[in-house]
Amino acid sequence: MAPKLMKMIRVEAPLLREIMAEFLGTFILVLFGDASVAQSKLSNEANGDFFSINWGWAVGVMMGVLVAGGVSGAHLNPAVTLAMACAGRIAIIKVFFYMLAQYLGAFAAAASVLGVYSDAIEYYSNTNHNGTLYMNNEANDPGLAGIFSTYPAPWLSIAGGIGDQILGTMLLLLCICAITDKKNTQIPSALVPMYVGFTILGIGVCFGANCGYALNPARDLSPRLITLIAGWDQSFSWNNYNWFWIPIVGPHIGAILGVFIYIAFVEAHWPEEGDEVVPITVPRANFNKERGEKIQNMDMESF
Amino acid sequence: MAPKLMKMIRVEAPLLREIMAEFLGTFILVLFGDASVAQSKLSNEANGDFFSINWGWAVGVMMGVLVAGGVSGAHLNPAVTLAMACAGRIAIIKVFFYMLAQYLGAFAAAASVLGVYSDAIEYYSNTNHNGTLYMNNEANDPGLAGIFSTYPAPWLSIAGGIGDQILGTMLLLLCICAITDKKNTQIPSALVPMYVGFTILGIGVCFGANCGYALNPARDLSPRLITLIAGWDQSFSWNNYNWFWIPIVGPHIGAILGVFIYIAFVEAHWPEEGDEVVPITVPRANFNKERGEKIQNMDMESF
Amino acid sequence: MAPKLMKMIRVEAPLLREIMAEFLGTFILVLFGDASVAQSKLSNEANGDFFSINWGWAVGVMMGVLVAGGVSGAHLNPAVTLAMACAGRIAIIKVFFYMLAQYLGAFAAAASVLGVYSDAIEYYSNTNHNGTLYMNNEANDPGLAGIFSTYPAPWLSIAGGIGDQILGTMLLLLCICAITDKKNTQIPSALVPMYVGFTILGIGVCFGANCGYALNPARDLSPRLITLIAGWDQSFSWNNYNWFWIPIVGPHIGAILGVFIYIAFVEAHWPEEGDEVVPITVPRANFNKERGEKIQNMDMESF
Amino acid sequence: MAPKLMKMIRVEAPLLREIMAEFLGTFILVLFGDASVAQSKLSNEANGDFFSINWGWAVGVMMGVLVAGGVSGAHLNPAVTLAMACAGRIAIIKVFFYMLAQYLGAFAAAASVLGVYSDAIEYYSNTNHNGTLYMNNEANDPGLAGIFSTYPAPWLSIAGGIGDQILGTMLLLLCICAITDKKNTQIPSALVPMYVGFTILGIGVCFGANCGYALNPARDLSPRLITLIAGWDQSFSWNNYNWFWIPIVGPHIGAILGVFIYIAFVEAHWPEEGDEVVPITVPRANFNKERGEKIQNMDMESF
Repeated sequence: MAPKLMKMIRVEAPLLREIMAEFLGTFILVLFGDASVAQSKLSNEANGDFFSINWGWAVGVMMGVLVAGGVSGAHLNPAVTLAMACAGRIAIIKVFFYMLAQYLGAFAAAASVLGVYSDAIEYYSNTNHNGTLYMNNEANDPGLAGIFSTYPAPWLSIAGGIGDQILGTMLLLLCICAITDKKNTQIPSALVPMYVGFTILGIGVCFGANCGYALNPARDLSPRLITLIAGWDQSFSWNNYNWFWIPIVGPHIGAILGVFIYIAFVEAHWPEEGDEVVPITVPRANFNKERGEKIQNMDMESF
Repeated sequence: MAPKLMKMIRVEAPLLREIMAEFLGTFILVLFGDASVAQSKLSNEANGDFFSINWGWAVGVMMGVLVAGGVSGAHLNPAVTLAMACAGRIAIIKVFFYMLAQYLGAFAAAASVLGVYSDAIEYYSNTNHNGTLYMNNEANDPGLAGIFSTYPAPWLSIAGGIGDQILGTMLLLLCICAITDKKNTQIPSALVPMYVGFTILGIGVCFGANCGYALNPARDLSPRLITLIAGWDQSFSWNNYNWFWIPIVGPHIGAILGVFIYIAFVEAHWPEEGDEVVPITVPRANFNKERGEKIQNMDMESF
Repeated sequence: MAPKLMKMIRVEAPLLREIMAEFLGTFILVLFGDASVAQSKLSNEANGDFFSINWGWAVGVMMGVLVAGGVSGAHLNPAVTLAMACAGRIAIIKVFFYMLAQYLGAFAAAASVLGVYSDAIEYYSNTNHNGTLYMNNEANDPGLAGIFSTYPAPWLSIAGGIGDQILGTMLLLLCICAITDKKNTQIPSALVPMYVGFTILGIGVCFGANCGYALNPARDLSPRLITLIAGWDQSFSWNNYNWFWIPIVGPHIGAILGVFIYIAFVEAHWPEEGDEVVPITVPRANFNKERGEKIQNMDMESF
Repeated sequence: MAPKLMKMIRVEAPLLREIMAEFLGTFILVLFGDASVAQSKLSNEANGDFFSINWGWAVGVMMGVLVAGGVSGAHLNPAVTLAMACAGRIAIIKVFFYMLAQYLGAFAAAASVLGVYSDAIEYYSNTNHNGTLYMNNEANDPGLAGIFSTYPAPWLSIAGGIGDQILGTMLLLLCICAITDKKNTQIPSALVPMYVGFTILGIGVCFGANCGYALNPARDLSPRLITLIAGWDQSFSWNNYNWFWIPIVGPHIGAILGVFIYIAFVEAHWPEEGDEVVPITVPRANFNKERGEKIQNMDMESF
């Protein structure tokens, strides 16, 4: 059955394939991520807490990269796509299509989470808020809207929020660039999803307190639209419309910064000869040479 | 001793070997999993909580895949076996035997957990319930029966339960397909158990709140039978017999859906020439080419 | 300096090298493990809990295997050494020396943990027990002696304890055999420490509630001796001398069982031709063949 | 854009490239690490606890090694640089520059964390301490200064602190030496960051209770300078100036010890012929040979 089916539905257009992969990858990313927040909030932390949410997003990104990696490179994030375009690593003409696929994938994922946890949301709302979708800007409590999109901590200023999103996304892209730089620690494609997952785990554990480490406009804006549609009416008007745009603007700036910092500090300076690789860590071989002479072409064949 | 023994007991029939591997793999999966719930419940969360249970199932699946992977492909789950059969990846004639092995392995594992924690169960029952095996549908409290099988959260409707099991298993199969697709991120067999384990961790952290992420009829039905035999008499009658069948029906549907969604979005569209592989993430090589031209045959030999 | 030093101290005798590696590996294992319990208990769970202890032992085993793996095979556990000898995988003559090294390594590690946390132990004893080393069998509270060795939960019978240690160690060896079986999922040596670490994490999360998953006579007996010497005088007399021998006897039985169960279910049945490998999971190649025909010799070169 | 830019800014001087990599790697390490403590403290543990902090440092080290590994070997720690110099694995002339880069990278990171969490620090200070930067040696409470640098637990003596830092750093270097020893378990460069990360996780989980496992003078001293500048005025005078130097002196001693213990127990004794590798764990091949004969040259090509 399947082989015949596969021939019948086969798409050869590269861009269309990449769009489908970006859609599916972002869908998986946000499906895991939003659901991990839902699980924690709806169970009153009985089945999860901030740390388990960090793992939910980490596994979400890991699996999203696994699914889309071989097709599109698994950007899964408009800010990543923009940064890659700025660095000349993806054709400008593809940028719009990638971003569209990412926003749509995140939208579909948030709708799925709303669906699969709809019984729980109703139960929670009935138990705690007389059946209404509670959300309160004065009390700085986004209620269950916080399942889908990020909201700032009570202390966070606008500048602080922008700075947080820039720094976090910069760090993400710095790490992604190192992970995918074939001349650095030489991570095979099979380990890329795992390392990117750990990066997200780390950022969640370290930079989640200010405003929930969105780092990704698709991951934040599309679910926010879902919450608006579903009835959380302050989703966009939060802080007088001075929040929703920050996880959109900040990541784009941070991503570009991250790529260029990595280029400036590491990537621009690799020796030119294509085949020469620089080994990681202490070169043991130099026990056989004069002391202090670092050997660059240590053999890596044993891997 | 062992080499001679090995020759004496050697089985050459492929199907029998696969059945033994599926039995042992599922045994290990459920042994870890059920025991992790037992540890948390019986110690009143002193030695575990929902997150540690998530890790217990993750390691259980990881080790089950490790043990059976090289022999049978490590389905360890009747829903996976059915989906693979639908996709033409396993002979129809094997389906029944695989499933039987899985149900028996899960049964043996649940019996072992009942045995190894029998002192603790008796102590817990004496301390809290006058020595009886407590279970109360009205109070929506399955008691220690929840160690072995899943029960729905108070808010969950029948449709919600089916939807949850379909979505969760779909997601599981989507990830498994990506992990084992040799044309995608090219995961070597040695990393398959680890990624499948992380997938289970993620699903547990994200989709465990509704009804405990069974996702596997063998993992749920066989231990439920154990609880019925051991004396938890509402194991099957819970919610007027309207729960026990949901973690059986839902996963079968979800698994098939997951496989076909992966085929439709990614697998059907790989370039035909067998040797050509598509690299993950940003192709660095294109710095040497015209900008925007994505290079497909980036060398992966360094891996 | 170092190269010359290395030549001066060079040991060529293989057995002596293996003994040193077993000593150092077990030292590292127990150093991490005992310290993780110390951290949790001495900080009144502010800096750790049962889950972090599970990670402490997991990383301890991971690093112990890393350090000794290339020299001795990293048994780090007398029960493992005995089981390997029973299976004919290590010369009988080495058994005694391996075990001695393991007991000494664990002893040195427990002494180091006692040293590095001595300020904390004194502070804790002064704060809670008038400066005495508290330990109370009637109240079933081993006090800080629980940092070093395992003690049974209040519910555990002697038979239950033996069963727990047999099952846990059996599971450990089952997993180790699968991890190191070159014909199964083909784990490279570089991933062995990680998988063994995850195995320990899983066993800790699942089988730690009864009596603290010793699974290793060296890990339990040597630190128990330290506690006796240091002044916890019921270390051996606990439960009328009916505890201390259980984590010694149980693991030896369980380890042998585990090895032979793996042989009986999986290892004895591999096809004989040395080069033929059996692929993990779903063989994709069969899309090009008749449906239902499983291909055994799927190419693994891409790895 | 980027390719041209890369040519324009290209640095060919190896030492300068290594300095930039050490700077960036240490920056990332401390950025993750300090931020993970900030997140936990500033959210009153709502968004983190000691275990999530352990993961923050682990991911920080993992990513720092990933970023700098291919260029400088990723010391990221003056104690590591000193130990490598003592073992003849880095030219003495480089030591000063590496250390300078590390101290500067840590300084920049701590300043960034101070910046990104400045709103939160102000809010926290206003809420709890009338807007002042609280720090109280008598009460043994470093307040938010504990985000940046380590402070001893109430029980810790000076000798205990030094011993803790020596033991912890010794253990770190023991593990690093095993991880990077190409003749031991043969970890490829791609897995080095992950294993080093797990080492840090383990040390955090096991040796964090006494005084916060600094293990790294740059990670501790530079952020301490930041806290002094920012207004936490007892940063250096804590315990009558008898704390701040301990996480500087201890790690240097411990690192040297660790390297030489690894050499003494393992590295000095490898067989001389360059190509011969010793396999990890149980050699299965010996089923075909006389029992008890360990085969050293087991084929590893399958990896």
